[in-house]
Amino acid sequence: MRYGVLGTGMVGRTLGSRLVELGNQVTMGGRQAGGDDAVEWARAAGEGAREGTFADAAAFGEVVIVAVAGSHAVSALRMAGAENLRGKVVVDVSNPIAEGTGFPPQLAVCNTDSVGEQLQREFPEARVVKSMNTVNCAVMVDPSLVPGAHTVFVGGDDAEAKQVVASMLHGFGWPAASVFDLGGIETARGTEMYLALWLRLMRAVGTPHLNVALHVGAR
Amino acid sequence: MRYGVLGTGMVGRTLGSRLVELGNQVTMGGRQAGGDDAVEWARAAGEGAREGTFADAAAFGEVVIVAVAGSHAVSALRMAGAENLRGKVVVDVSNPIAEGTGFPPQLAVCNTDSVGEQLQREFPEARVVKSMNTVNCAVMVDPSLVPGAHTVFVGGDDAEAKQVVASMLHGFGWPAASVFDLGGIETARGTEMYLALWLRLMRAVGTPHLNVALHVGAR
Repeated sequence: MRYGVLGTGMVGRTLGSRLVELGNQVTMGGRQAGGDDAVEWARAAGEGAREGTFADAAAFGEVVIVAVAGSHAVSALRMAGAENLRGKVVVDVSNPIAEGTGFPPQLAVCNTDSVGEQLQREFPEARVVKSMNTVNCAVMVDPSLVPGAHTVFVGGDDAEAKQVVASMLHGFGWPAASVFDLGGIETARGTEMYLALWLRLMRAVGTPHLNVALHVGAR
Repeated sequence: MRYGVLGTGMVGRTLGSRLVELGNQVTMGGRQAGGDDAVEWARAAGEGAREGTFADAAAFGEVVIVAVAGSHAVSALRMAGAENLRGKVVVDVSNPIAEGTGFPPQLAVCNTDSVGEQLQREFPEARVVKSMNTVNCAVMVDPSLVPGAHTVFVGGDDAEAKQVVASMLHGFGWPAASVFDLGGIETARGTEMYLALWLRLMRAVGTPHLNVALHVGAR
């Protein structure tokens, strides 16, 4: 599979490296091509890894992963270009952390909207799936860092796109029973607002290697 | 133990009934004394159950439980009277659901503040503990409705008050290992914003008998 990863930070590099390890081809995109982090990443990740602009990465990918800060997600996708996103699965793993609000940070958007919805509204021909934003990037690609069975969410308006993301998750080591379909892209509001709890959990337990498992009683 | 339960709705009645069953004395308070729900509750709950105003309930309780809608919590405590709350453990189980926002509802306060913090700010001599607002009231008093070990949170600035709440939780059937101390009252922002996810989980699974279990990896 060909992936475009938008974002050259820790999240993008972690996802990109794992996808290359699993035999995929990955182009990582930044605001400009040739950034130090992206170049170093492409060299270290080896065969199958390339870097370029947001547009290069989006054009390359059959699946496009949004791994920039949530408050920059819309602008990154604008730079990637609607024509490079049309019909594609766009996996939004971002959270809208507001800059300059200390720790724990506040959210730049919440309650009445979400990054996932912003992306789907602005790029109606993309098939946006919100996923993995409730776990640290190391856990995204290696759920065994957290003991036991625990849950990762998918939300989006396109059932087939969610299946594509579920397959990617299985490749990362998430069992089928751990992938929970919340519903439409509107559910991104729920998983993004959970960041407020996640940040406080991280501070309390002293590691980002944490997650929650969904338990459901009788209906 | 003597409890004052503020709120005559489903949450207050469920908590009140279980506390009476466990041998405690409970006065349930409403905006006015003698409301149909409260009177009927007191009759059905039997020995140890009484009803009255918010002020009656707060004056009676050694522990005061805030079981009104979150957006009415401050006004309920004002009616209860600061003098009836001074030095007491005030357990806030509420969520700030905004009225008239459809389903899933929005929050009336979030991101930069929380009901838990509002209460602690307005009543600095009360010892506010946010707890149980991440589960349905039936699960609050009977965690076995959800299979396996799962987590309930406490947050507050007074360690002793959190111990009192933990003891109440143990009485309801929550094992010590399931009670997670998030930190200060500011963490109420995290558990209240989790409502956005909880509501969508409830819709997806089709029952309010759900919860999450915290799993933590190596530090």
